[in-house]
Amino acid sequence: MRVNGEAFRTVWMDGGVVHMIDQPRLPHAFKIAQFEHHSQTAVAITTMVVRGAGAIGATGAYGMAQAALEAPDLGFHKYIQDAANTLSNTRPTAQNLFYGVGTVLKAIEGCGDNIAQARQAAVAAAQGVADDDAACCEAIGKHGAPLIPHGARVSTHCNAGWLAFVDWGSAISPIYVAHRSGNPVHVFVDETRPRGQGARLTAWELGSEGVPHSIIADNATGHLMQRGEIDMVIVGSDRIAANGDVANKIGTYSSAVVAQAHGIPFYVAAPTTTIDLDCPTGMDIPIEERGSEEVSHTWGWSDEGQFIRVRTTPAQSGVRNPAFDVTPAALVAGIITEVGVVPATTAGIASVARQS
Amino acid sequence: MRVNGEAFRTVWMDGGVVHMIDQPRLPHAFKIAQFEHHSQTAVAITTMVVRGAGAIGATGAYGMAQAALEAPDLGFHKYIQDAANTLSNTRPTAQNLFYGVGTVLKAIEGCGDNIAQARQAAVAAAQGVADDDAACCEAIGKHGAPLIPHGARVSTHCNAGWLAFVDWGSAISPIYVAHRSGNPVHVFVDETRPRGQGARLTAWELGSEGVPHSIIADNATGHLMQRGEIDMVIVGSDRIAANGDVANKIGTYSSAVVAQAHGIPFYVAAPTTTIDLDCPTGMDIPIEERGSEEVSHTWGWSDEGQFIRVRTTPAQSGVRNPAFDVTPAALVAGIITEVGVVPATTAGIASVARQS
Repeated sequence: MRVNGEAFRTVWMDGGVVHMIDQPRLPHAFKIAQFEHHSQTAVAITTMVVRGAGAIGATGAYGMAQAALEAPDLGFHKYIQDAANTLSNTRPTAQNLFYGVGTVLKAIEGCGDNIAQARQAAVAAAQGVADDDAACCEAIGKHGAPLIPHGARVSTHCNAGWLAFVDWGSAISPIYVAHRSGNPVHVFVDETRPRGQGARLTAWELGSEGVPHSIIADNATGHLMQRGEIDMVIVGSDRIAANGDVANKIGTYSSAVVAQAHGIPFYVAAPTTTIDLDCPTGMDIPIEERGSEEVSHTWGWSDEGQFIRVRTTPAQSGVRNPAFDVTPAALVAGIITEVGVVPATTAGIASVARQS
Repeated sequence: MRVNGEAFRTVWMDGGVVHMIDQPRLPHAFKIAQFEHHSQTAVAITTMVVRGAGAIGATGAYGMAQAALEAPDLGFHKYIQDAANTLSNTRPTAQNLFYGVGTVLKAIEGCGDNIAQARQAAVAAAQGVADDDAACCEAIGKHGAPLIPHGARVSTHCNAGWLAFVDWGSAISPIYVAHRSGNPVHVFVDETRPRGQGARLTAWELGSEGVPHSIIADNATGHLMQRGEIDMVIVGSDRIAANGDVANKIGTYSSAVVAQAHGIPFYVAAPTTTIDLDCPTGMDIPIEERGSEEVSHTWGWSDEGQFIRVRTTPAQSGVRNPAFDVTPAALVAGIITEVGVVPATTAGIASVARQS
């Protein structure tokens, strides 16, 4: 998507160098980080220079392509295997990471002892992973855009935009497609405490692309719905259960309940890789509790431009910090995928789920 | 209530000196500010050293008592009238402030030209305003405490504790009474973005009194309700309409909607002075929109102990910042007042409303 009028992806490879938008610096500074060796790329995943399922998958794939270019002819396959282990261990629970690394590994192994061919195949496979992610997200946008009424005011939560993928995003992709086609959409961006992905990332994305938007405290969503200022909700998802229940960033559930109370359609946009048929319902999805510092402290830029944290709570007070919640399928108006919009039902999910 | 084992009020007068807890320093530091002249007391109200309806009312009354002690015999009544104007103009919309100042003014005027008697009457009237506020809040606590089941997990929003009044508070008063009577209650404290009154003030109050509590991001309330971890909600109110609709800090409405979806009782605790019979319904209550900096920046203490702000949003992004919302009476299980618990209905409100 566009930044200062120029098209960018979150991550790309040029020769043997992996480039990525340095996300922790956003929105204060827009910098491109460059990594010449697969081990540096691995560290960049660990330190969250890049984040988001789709973007991490592509980064893992590019790291494997770097490894193929670096690997000596003697001990080539051992080097590749070590690189696959290093890259896979950067984020132990990131499904897309294993997919990205595994896809390139398979392409290399398919070339047997033809090392020159394996190097070419690795680069092509990595590029394919990134291109597939971008194409998948663009397709989500094309299927979702017709759901957005002319001039709609759309609420979204967290960051399910292009920064979480290679390009376009999931929840924000239909908004980008609608905006580019001339729909004067306005987005209400939940700041998304405690980590503030909406305030930091979604708002920056929308501003860079020129989409009108307002950041609000998460607390304001209900009031705006009550006063008729929100026409629809589109959010992303971290995992979708077989019955259509949806896990997403904490706060999504409250937004869905209040939306239903006002008859406001609540959509979930996600690639079909987000569906987990091994989870019968949302109650089978474990909810991660994260560290208390995310609630007791807020990171941001001081008036002097330093990125620092401030404490907002008494040091003695306890904190609970569930990172995700589950929205029951009954509250979801539809799931927008790269192959079409389906109802959040067992039949709807089954009709688009990839068989593993 | 207790701080480090010692009993405090938010504001009190000793001789001609007004003492108050310096609230902007909380929770990082507990300091008592002292003001020897009514004009200093007025500045303290303006600069929000003290905040909250009940506490401001008592401070205005004490400021008037100071003026009566300071005023020269020659020109006594002119001095008093100037002081009343100064104190009343510190916060132009604070109903309790006018009540506090007016009560002392009336006591002074009742003494005619007997200036020595007027000084005594002023001090007694100011003390009466403060004592009445504390007694009213304690009565709210006694009426509300029996509604809290043994070991209940209670959700609250913003700060409706003793720091907003002279003592005890409104929403938190029933919790204090229950806790002191041996009920092992646990409080989930919404941090209450954008200004963080829950994280800063309510959590500090509860910790100082020894009440077990957990601070949560406002986004986590729905999830905890869904998982059966919240048994009831008690919040305060800024204004109650004649039909029982309730205006309170932004985010209250969403909490009420999700509570109802889970059959969790949602109570409002407030002195009957909060009732405004001139507002037929909540939709007649104007909702203040505050400055964008409250959302774009967060104030807190740096690791070096400096109280500073950090920016968390892109400088170019717009912000919407409604400060209050309206919870319809139908979502309110009951209104806890100093004269008893009444239903949130026109009849219930009429049965306790003070006739002006």
